[in-house]
Amino acid sequence: MKPDNKAAIGIFDSGIGGLTVVKSVMKMLPGEDIIYFGDTARVPYGIKSVETIREYAFQITDFLVKKQVKMILIACNTVAAAAESLLVDRVAKKNIPVLGVIDAGAKAALEVPSNHKRIGVIGTLATVGSGAYEKAIQEKNQDISVFSKACPLLVPIAEEGWADTDIARQTLEIYLESFQDKELDALILGCTHYPLFRQQILSVLKNPSLEIVDSADSIALKAKEVLTEKKLINTQEKGSFSCYVSDKPQRFQHLAELFLGEAVRRVEVISLPV
Amino acid sequence: MKPDNKAAIGIFDSGIGGLTVVKSVMKMLPGEDIIYFGDTARVPYGIKSVETIREYAFQITDFLVKKQVKMILIACNTVAAAAESLLVDRVAKKNIPVLGVIDAGAKAALEVPSNHKRIGVIGTLATVGSGAYEKAIQEKNQDISVFSKACPLLVPIAEEGWADTDIARQTLEIYLESFQDKELDALILGCTHYPLFRQQILSVLKNPSLEIVDSADSIALKAKEVLTEKKLINTQEKGSFSCYVSDKPQRFQHLAELFLGEAVRRVEVISLPV
Repeated sequence: MKPDNKAAIGIFDSGIGGLTVVKSVMKMLPGEDIIYFGDTARVPYGIKSVETIREYAFQITDFLVKKQVKMILIACNTVAAAAESLLVDRVAKKNIPVLGVIDAGAKAALEVPSNHKRIGVIGTLATVGSGAYEKAIQEKNQDISVFSKACPLLVPIAEEGWADTDIARQTLEIYLESFQDKELDALILGCTHYPLFRQQILSVLKNPSLEIVDSADSIALKAKEVLTEKKLINTQEKGSFSCYVSDKPQRFQHLAELFLGEAVRRVEVISLPV
Repeated sequence: MKPDNKAAIGIFDSGIGGLTVVKSVMKMLPGEDIIYFGDTARVPYGIKSVETIREYAFQITDFLVKKQVKMILIACNTVAAAAESLLVDRVAKKNIPVLGVIDAGAKAALEVPSNHKRIGVIGTLATVGSGAYEKAIQEKNQDISVFSKACPLLVPIAEEGWADTDIARQTLEIYLESFQDKELDALILGCTHYPLFRQQILSVLKNPSLEIVDSADSIALKAKEVLTEKKLINTQEKGSFSCYVSDKPQRFQHLAELFLGEAVRRVEVISLPV
């Protein structure tokens, strides 16, 4: 099938956090139609095994391919860590590019002017445990030291709407303590929820030259590059947004507002595999 | 099938928290063989829809029935809230009693000497949102006022091993604030993780006459009553413990120790439905 510039971009996440990627794509590629899938029946992925995460990612990718998307963005760090190259292979024959937040975030961090050649990464247990950011960074530049730390409490704190509280600050002080003497050039927010903590992180780390790398912005920028190169940009003024979830948690509408900055009006519930 | 006193007790939870029930059963019924199922591939249930929770509960119940258990304990408050009576009906023909933590916890709270006829309940969003404890209490005594509060951050804090920290204390101060002027007679810990916060809760609530009702102890006591009445107590000296999970999270062994107070050596991974 020849790709069509009118086709939508498929974006997926284990839950709702990937809406930060949707927000960045809407800002950088306003004409694109977006189909979002959030696996709210099976969230969170961060505590599951690699095999289970891969199986779920295959099901969602197949769903998006059936929706005839022209590109797939893996908005979930946990999935990107466990399955990015497998998903690229799975849809390669269909000529659909697959981009993941980890590769995009790693590249963006390497573009930060580097004094100390030191990059920090924070993420879920699964993302950090996989070593995927270290691998992605050191494949491109072996001289960089990577320091990473799993921060499992940050997602539930963000979802409680407590990102600006003193509880969040104390939690960050514990999680980020090992970074204080590392003179990091960049810190990658390796989870789609973490941009909500940007100000608190900068204040806790007290490092004026530190650059925060938000993988949501990084992947949206990369998507724009790839679509431009392939002449697949949708030039309409404003694209549509279709939102699918595998289960409708009570808090979906509320949380969507927290992440997207506006309400998601229509959400369709579907069961996987389709 | 005639029930056999040598048959095991089936206990299940959405994840690992139900091991607090296992611990109570081991203490009160030391001769019983126990088969535990933790749905670690799909944990947490607390943010899922009632329909999804019921479907998962049916699958697990069917698994335990195939294992020929003589009794089933729903160690998950979220499942008990969403599906207790449905599960009772599902296995009624097989003559297998099903007990849930909510009914057991509500009965135990009503046995606390009552000065103010006020009971508090804390639990997950799904448990509190279901109103199941209120319903179970007020069906038995309409004069009791029930005050409830969802505490979604407590499970991740417990699983981080931070139940004794200042962060846990501040979180409890926020969650329990509305209880401070209520002169509660009893507070039901409506989630299997919450016994880990017992001391902090007592210290935050500053109510010397408050009784904490731990639903794990309540359901174990109820199980002993039912088995005694049906002459189904296993009189061997020490029962066996078989542990099944639907996915093996990296932290399972570590967390099992946190809940059970001892290591779980052998864990079998199975996929549902079987």
